[in-house]
Amino acid sequence: MSLHIKHLIGLQNVPKEDIEIILKSTKKFKEHFQTSKEKLTDLSGKTIANIFFEDSTRTRTSFELAEKRLSADVLNFSSSSSSLSKGESFKDTVKNIEAMNIDMIVVRHSSAGIPFYLTKYSQSVIINAGDGAHEHPTQGLLDIYTIKEKLGRIKGLNICIVGDIAHSRVALSNLFGLKTLGANVSFCGPSTMIPRDIEKFGAKVYNNIDKAIRENDILNVLRIQLERDAGKNFPSIREYTNYFGITEQRIKNNNENILILHPGPINRGVELSPEVADGNNQVILDQVTNGVAVRMAVLSLLGKN
Amino acid sequence: MSLHIKHLIGLQNVPKEDIEIILKSTKKFKEHFQTSKEKLTDLSGKTIANIFFEDSTRTRTSFELAEKRLSADVLNFSSSSSSLSKGESFKDTVKNIEAMNIDMIVVRHSSAGIPFYLTKYSQSVIINAGDGAHEHPTQGLLDIYTIKEKLGRIKGLNICIVGDIAHSRVALSNLFGLKTLGANVSFCGPSTMIPRDIEKFGAKVYNNIDKAIRENDILNVLRIQLERDAGKNFPSIREYTNYFGITEQRIKNNNENILILHPGPINRGVELSPEVADGNNQVILDQVTNGVAVRMAVLSLLGKN
Amino acid sequence: MSLHIKHLIGLQNVPKEDIEIILKSTKKFKEHFQTSKEKLTDLSGKTIANIFFEDSTRTRTSFELAEKRLSADVLNFSSSSSSLSKGESFKDTVKNIEAMNIDMIVVRHSSAGIPFYLTKYSQSVIINAGDGAHEHPTQGLLDIYTIKEKLGRIKGLNICIVGDIAHSRVALSNLFGLKTLGANVSFCGPSTMIPRDIEKFGAKVYNNIDKAIRENDILNVLRIQLERDAGKNFPSIREYTNYFGITEQRIKNNNENILILHPGPINRGVELSPEVADGNNQVILDQVTNGVAVRMAVLSLLGKN
Repeated sequence: MSLHIKHLIGLQNVPKEDIEIILKSTKKFKEHFQTSKEKLTDLSGKTIANIFFEDSTRTRTSFELAEKRLSADVLNFSSSSSSLSKGESFKDTVKNIEAMNIDMIVVRHSSAGIPFYLTKYSQSVIINAGDGAHEHPTQGLLDIYTIKEKLGRIKGLNICIVGDIAHSRVALSNLFGLKTLGANVSFCGPSTMIPRDIEKFGAKVYNNIDKAIRENDILNVLRIQLERDAGKNFPSIREYTNYFGITEQRIKNNNENILILHPGPINRGVELSPEVADGNNQVILDQVTNGVAVRMAVLSLLGKN
Repeated sequence: MSLHIKHLIGLQNVPKEDIEIILKSTKKFKEHFQTSKEKLTDLSGKTIANIFFEDSTRTRTSFELAEKRLSADVLNFSSSSSSLSKGESFKDTVKNIEAMNIDMIVVRHSSAGIPFYLTKYSQSVIINAGDGAHEHPTQGLLDIYTIKEKLGRIKGLNICIVGDIAHSRVALSNLFGLKTLGANVSFCGPSTMIPRDIEKFGAKVYNNIDKAIRENDILNVLRIQLERDAGKNFPSIREYTNYFGITEQRIKNNNENILILHPGPINRGVELSPEVADGNNQVILDQVTNGVAVRMAVLSLLGKN
Repeated sequence: MSLHIKHLIGLQNVPKEDIEIILKSTKKFKEHFQTSKEKLTDLSGKTIANIFFEDSTRTRTSFELAEKRLSADVLNFSSSSSSLSKGESFKDTVKNIEAMNIDMIVVRHSSAGIPFYLTKYSQSVIINAGDGAHEHPTQGLLDIYTIKEKLGRIKGLNICIVGDIAHSRVALSNLFGLKTLGANVSFCGPSTMIPRDIEKFGAKVYNNIDKAIRENDILNVLRIQLERDAGKNFPSIREYTNYFGITEQRIKNNNENILILHPGPINRGVELSPEVADGNNQVILDQVTNGVAVRMAVLSLLGKN
């Protein structure tokens, strides 16, 4: 089992067979670390640099854990700790890191396109851990894995992504990956948060959350960026919650079997009511658990290439 | 050899047999790392998260070293690096960390009771690395181990804890652990620093440091929190030093064999004179060395459960 | 193969045989990590503390990677994270770290002499990662290794170090190491940046960069500390660049075979023109790659002692 892709920049152009290999490998790794404490050595002797130009506890930790569980040597860089503060260019910083014989680079950056740009002059395997509003492919893969784990399949399912679609890399990675596997993807949110040209991807748009709950098998509810969005993309947080917040009542009224995903961290009482955030429809902590396994799969498969 | 306890929250309710098992295991680990460079693998394949919501170089480093020497995979979290800054609740943060299949959590927090609270909803083994003014059990254990190493026993010894007892987690962990093993524990400090109801624990209180030196085998001298205490709990640092500072003269006049412990970092010239801080009565660096071994013992014993 | 030296404080008094052993070992490690992914275990079971009282991504990362590739347990300390902020003395901090049975200490400090001072009261092997304007011996060694790798020898070569010699630890470590191996070392820079008594080391001084390029085989071009030097040691950055900046034109006019070293991070357009920084004469990324190998050699050789 080896992948066609050499880097993981986004799910937009990853062939179906590659996604399926990753999902199969994820299952194997998840079973391993839930049943065995035997240390894996898939990446022993390999060095991975985690270069995070944006803060992220959750994703960075998940990658770091995946890397250590595969016995890689791990180096962590953050923008504040890097030589960038001495005025060095981004390219020089990365070329210097790479000159230390780094095998793989996991990179997060606020600008879309940086991970792709790195593949052009770097010898290392590049894994995108989120670039601007472009893609966050391992998040997409862990969402897909979690849905398949819970519902047994992806093909033919109806999935609606709820929230600030326009600024979300999670939304795009979900869209591309899920469509490749044959799901029907739609979006729901205030019109100020839906990109104008989204229909070109063949995705339906809901303005009414109740209808979205009724007509879908899964909601992937995005995090509202409280500090950024309120007052700009909608009048107030209360209004967002009134129109788009997921509550037990809405689930009961419309679709009691709906599966709720959320990439975390949750704003309880904003995009999810506290009851839904801890309720039986959500699989949020499964997503976290699966995130480590999916990253082990990606790292191990690309590290072999 | 296995422990009755499943977590280490405090020494208050740890049975005598468990403390003795930990002390025996500590001796084994100390001998190992002083005589052999063979890498231990007791925790190979296990993941430990160090979650420090209060700064601590000393304790965090000691735990981290103990964990690495046992071949665990180690993740470090501090309050500043965590998703708490994105408004996530403490409980959500910990549940997320745990969802990554963490086996053990070492936690320090400014609020008493947080480690105990974690045992209620977490599947991981919880080790308290200091919670508010409650307990700091591995510090208590390393103090006990050091005393036993130097004086050959604990039972029947007279130990006086000197300083700000009211705000000290070290004082309580010493009290509980030492009493369980049959020592007589007393306290000495300005009356503003002694809790009013301390006699309920059967501990004698000294207001006079000379008398305390005369009547005890060991002083455990706490660190004065310069930034917090002076001007509030006593008129000035100079006055504290005059009344309660340990000097060579006081040792010579009262008890030349007194054993001096201090949890560090030392304020030279405040609670200990520079001569005492470097003198023959103190065993401060032995405490540091033993701290790593005691933490290896605790981690390895609880990790097996 | 074992070294006469027990610590690496500077290259000033390292015997020729020791440097040659280190260079030979560097070659072996470089070959290993470029051809094999087998994990080395030279320092398995050993603990190394990296204590950096000055920021440094590049050097700290290179050491950390070297240590991990040799399977050491690694602890990182920075001045901000240390107990120094609680008012503890430097000596107490280091003695405490060492009491945890640390085998080797890699230290960077803004004061010259600190690493040597540590050897006086510490049981650990001390490696200087840069102390004030004194020495940076592993940088000197990696420069020497890179020159030898490119030109096949050191003896008889003419090397000119360009820039702020007076404040450079890189300059001194180059001077001592290269002279020991029989090279001719000279300096070039504004007179305000050349120490007055530099001739006592038998080093020629150039005031004219064109002449320096003509008469040397190698330039080691130091980084201009933009934030510190301009307006103090010379009138302006533009003036420095006009008089001492290395450009393609100057290379073409004077010596097309000149080898250009730079310790990084580069100020493109200041001490090196962008074309030179990416051109065929420079070996800057080779230096970075060799830095890891040279540190593996030093750590492994001193760790065996």
